[in-house]
Amino acid sequence: MNFGTVAILGPGLIGGSLALALAERGLARRLMIYARSPRALDEIRTAGVDAELSGNPSEAVRDADVVILCVPIEAMPGLVHEFRDALKPTALVTDVGSVKGSVDRDLAPLLEDRALWIGSHPMAGSEQGGFAAARADLFEGAAVIITPTKKTRREAERLAEKFWEALGARLYILEPEFHDLAVAEISHVPHLVAALLVSKVSEESLPLAGGGFRDTTRVASGSPELWTEILWANRHAMKEHCQAWSMIMSNLKATFDSNDPAKKSELFKILKDAQSVRARLVEKYSVAKKLK
Amino acid sequence: MNFGTVAILGPGLIGGSLALALAERGLARRLMIYARSPRALDEIRTAGVDAELSGNPSEAVRDADVVILCVPIEAMPGLVHEFRDALKPTALVTDVGSVKGSVDRDLAPLLEDRALWIGSHPMAGSEQGGFAAARADLFEGAAVIITPTKKTRREAERLAEKFWEALGARLYILEPEFHDLAVAEISHVPHLVAALLVSKVSEESLPLAGGGFRDTTRVASGSPELWTEILWANRHAMKEHCQAWSMIMSNLKATFDSNDPAKKSELFKILKDAQSVRARLVEKYSVAKKLK
Repeated sequence: MNFGTVAILGPGLIGGSLALALAERGLARRLMIYARSPRALDEIRTAGVDAELSGNPSEAVRDADVVILCVPIEAMPGLVHEFRDALKPTALVTDVGSVKGSVDRDLAPLLEDRALWIGSHPMAGSEQGGFAAARADLFEGAAVIITPTKKTRREAERLAEKFWEALGARLYILEPEFHDLAVAEISHVPHLVAALLVSKVSEESLPLAGGGFRDTTRVASGSPELWTEILWANRHAMKEHCQAWSMIMSNLKATFDSNDPAKKSELFKILKDAQSVRARLVEKYSVAKKLK
Repeated sequence: MNFGTVAILGPGLIGGSLALALAERGLARRLMIYARSPRALDEIRTAGVDAELSGNPSEAVRDADVVILCVPIEAMPGLVHEFRDALKPTALVTDVGSVKGSVDRDLAPLLEDRALWIGSHPMAGSEQGGFAAARADLFEGAAVIITPTKKTRREAERLAEKFWEALGARLYILEPEFHDLAVAEISHVPHLVAALLVSKVSEESLPLAGGGFRDTTRVASGSPELWTEILWANRHAMKEHCQAWSMIMSNLKATFDSNDPAKKSELFKILKDAQSVRARLVEKYSVAKKLK
């Protein structure tokens, strides 16, 4: 399998890992890497990655068969504007952003009739860390979600599937809006909640924190700059979830306030449901580990 | 150091570990163990613990210098009623319940002028698991909170301090009501929030869950029966916290709904605060590990 000329725009942790993985697996005939800053390009050069480096996005995509946008979400529309006249109409353009609804709304019109566009979200590592943290095996066994819409061309979906599967990923296919609600549930809301737990804890209580508190709040060590952008980019889904949480917490306040022991059944139901979902999660994880 | 005759009422994980630890460290001249069920007593007998076993609480406490209540919180007042006439007036009576306000309100009047009463909360293991999970080293390095009030006799506090320190615990002293707010913050609210995250996740999103989600929700694997009782026993503090969370989530809903990028600073502040508290938690943990 070979994807011809592949252009990676933004060689951070994800983009850099893509470059290393493509090179290691021999999946690209030619590898183009674009970065805005000369320092970033120097870093790739020093690392000895076998690729052509450029500070000009149009130059990087000119002959590309596959173009991967690995820059922050808010920088994508401007960048696509810059290079879209240089694209081959048969080129696949995809991204690695962690929200998909707004990205698709922004980029699909810019690329219509100019290239094959589809959104992607590799759920591997995080978007922090930069090229120094890149690894050739980042996508092996990782979940990658591709997000076709009614407007997506069949060739775009098929090529994106082949691309991520060739890198060893487990593929999921979801509509962009559904993707955003799903990742809010399993990643963005847990992150916000963990941060709230930690940021609200009083100075006097902190010395009492044990292993449970540390685990529950581990993700809150992530970069505040990065996570502000992720949560904000997914604000439509986050809004819905925050409203639901506000209602639930208000109901639980009433439950605790009632002093009526019969109300304990409401707590029990939540805790029992949670325990049984957790049992399935743990089982899935053990199976995945065994398969590795 | 020797505490004379020590009576342990309820040999589950905590009570059983107390028996093993006292025996290993030679801290009791005589060890009495009370359990209601003959099967529980058989289990201790089979394990060969050097103690006198009884199904009668008055018999167990009659000569005791220290009495430790290791039964579920809701069973404590009834049990104290049963045995209080048999107590020596110089005996220390304490408990291991995970809430302290209601326990102190229930037990202090029952024991006034009859024994030296003070509440304790060893934050070690959990209350599940039974005697089979008991370990002699459960309290080594563990946080134990004792909860004196204005009515607590100085001898009670001093003796409880010596007792837990002799078992290797790190001692904290908090008023019962403050204890309940603090453990709500670092244990009960995190547990409830983790359970909500898991129980609300949709079937379709579950396969996307990664390591972050698993860590954040790990505590939700705990026993629903046990945690229903813990959350309910601490309902005064939980009520306050749920109300605060409802407000915060309602405000965050408005933040996301505003579509005003200037509002991102509100998210950033939460995430930044959380990251810096986490850094201190992690540091504390590394230091504690090094000291071990």
